Amino acid sequence: MPRIILCGELTWSHAECEQMFTGVADVTVMSSPDRADFFRNLKPGGKYAGVVGVYRRNISAVQIGPFDREVVDALAKAGVKWIAHHGAGYDKIDVLRCKEMGITVSNTPGAVDDATATTALYLMISALRQFSKAEQDVRSGLWKSRLSSGNAHDATGRTLAILGLGGIGMRFAQLAHAFPMRIVYHNRRKAEDAPPWCEYYALDRLDEMLSISDVLSVHVPLRKETEGLVDENMIRKLKRGAIIVNTARGKVIDEDAMLRALEDGHLGAVGLDVYADEPSVNPRLLEMPNATLLPHMGASTCDTQKTMELRALGNLLAYLTEGKGSDIVPECQ
Amino acid sequence: MPRIILCGELTWSHAECEQMFTGVADVTVMSSPDRADFFRNLKPGGKYAGVVGVYRRNISAVQIGPFDREVVDALAKAGVKWIAHHGAGYDKIDVLRCKEMGITVSNTPGAVDDATATTALYLMISALRQFSKAEQDVRSGLWKSRLSSGNAHDATGRTLAILGLGGIGMRFAQLAHAFPMRIVYHNRRKAEDAPPWCEYYALDRLDEMLSISDVLSVHVPLRKETEGLVDENMIRKLKRGAIIVNTARGKVIDEDAMLRALEDGHLGAVGLDVYADEPSVNPRLLEMPNATLLPHMGASTCDTQKTMELRALGNLLAYLTEGKGSDIVPECQ
Repeated sequence: MPRIILCGELTWSHAECEQMFTGVADVTVMSSPDRADFFRNLKPGGKYAGVVGVYRRNISAVQIGPFDREVVDALAKAGVKWIAHHGAGYDKIDVLRCKEMGITVSNTPGAVDDATATTALYLMISALRQFSKAEQDVRSGLWKSRLSSGNAHDATGRTLAILGLGGIGMRFAQLAHAFPMRIVYHNRRKAEDAPPWCEYYALDRLDEMLSISDVLSVHVPLRKETEGLVDENMIRKLKRGAIIVNTARGKVIDEDAMLRALEDGHLGAVGLDVYADEPSVNPRLLEMPNATLLPHMGASTCDTQKTMELRALGNLLAYLTEGKGSDIVPECQ
Repeated sequence: MPRIILCGELTWSHAECEQMFTGVADVTVMSSPDRADFFRNLKPGGKYAGVVGVYRRNISAVQIGPFDREVVDALAKAGVKWIAHHGAGYDKIDVLRCKEMGITVSNTPGAVDDATATTALYLMISALRQFSKAEQDVRSGLWKSRLSSGNAHDATGRTLAILGLGGIGMRFAQLAHAFPMRIVYHNRRKAEDAPPWCEYYALDRLDEMLSISDVLSVHVPLRKETEGLVDENMIRKLKRGAIIVNTARGKVIDEDAMLRALEDGHLGAVGLDVYADEPSVNPRLLEMPNATLLPHMGASTCDTQKTMELRALGNLLAYLTEGKGSDIVPECQ
């Protein structure tokens, strides 16, 4: 019987998962303490021998590191044909090498939209209203002595710029539209399915979009061409006092440039779920009273986690039973 | 010339305010360090002599205390006919005594709806997602080691119960409807202007409403008959793991009963902007990892503050020029 390995735990029981693959594949939990052990056990006679599919969560990097060229090559050699990644962002997988080695990579794009957009909404409100500082004040017994409503703003009537109107960006736009906020966005191409109240700004009008925005929310995946996309130049094009929200990937923003702008008052506040060097957080960020900081938990709800797990495993199951699953990442199509 | 006194500062300049009342009234800032000084200066020859109207913010209680019977009587004797309160809740004013003494009290009801409902939205998301604990973890260098997504929930698809569907409750309902959430509410009477997706539960079905709700959000004013309204009995009727959000007044909830339910796990989390004994916060609340705590700043935005100031002063101006302002509280009608 072919084997699938789970690199990262499920929120539901292993027995249920085995049931899902009954008669189709053996399910083995990846239990290697390090990369060397992982490689050893991929070889004939090892506990992962016969593997054809991998379910992967980012948390597995703690033991075996990212799915870089070395891991991808070892998996290919062991017989892996499908990697079902749990999550929207798959920057920890060398997908181009996967394609070269005949491995298809799927992710779980739509499943995270709602939870991640809700996180962006929370970070935006917190940054606009200076709630993070307020909570710290309550907890240190200060009540609200350090606060002034002069720095706190309503969301209603302000302008939200979405950088990357994909599934998460569109969902956030819907939630913010309820206030209402004016919604503007920039994509490489106009999103044909976007409602009319999402105003498109092409690259030649990006500066104009930034100059009218009160909040810039980042929703582009991390790729070579998006690393440092939100740079000094873009940040300084925002109006003074504007807010940046990031629930995508830390490295999409030039974190040093953002910090400088926060420190010199050009940015009014930031709301961040992701960091350039996470799980490390730049200590200068921790010192800023107008920074709301979450530990990369945009999609961390029990509802969304189970949806993602079922979606990723469903893709593996479809590959095993029908020869092809869904949600194949663009690079592997 | 008649005089108005400002009990509590404005966010804009005093000169602008004087301009607003040019030829109508002298504007004097209340500068008494304590109640005795305030009373002395209300008398003939004092700096507040000739006062007919008062602009009042809750912050003035720091110097002269609440507008209780003693203050109301002194104001009436000095000639005050109108108290324009800045804010929605006017529980710090003895409005029944005002009516007896011929003083009309106005508040600024609609002005706070948007900002306060946004605060409720923030507290609900934070409580559902366990974001307050997450922020504390990041700031103490723990990243997310203490977190589990098993305790975090999506808002989407859950049921929000609004206790008191007035201006703020309705605005919160609109924002939560965007997810969508199912919206149920209890008022003494059915809100005739509520949209069809707001499901009304009369008193005889209140228990049923509580039993199906994931979130209970409190939006009733503090009056004798609402003090302790959310009591042990109501709290225990909520389903296990439910969340309470309070942006109204702390004393509307039996805080001890709420704390017990939070400590024994009946409540999953709470999101509070107000407290029974504020600015004191019960230390047991500070110890709960699943409590999001703000220092009563529901309406604290520069936009809303200025709107409230203009609304309150506009009511004073209308009284002085036309004999009657708007926003008169029910007790004085």
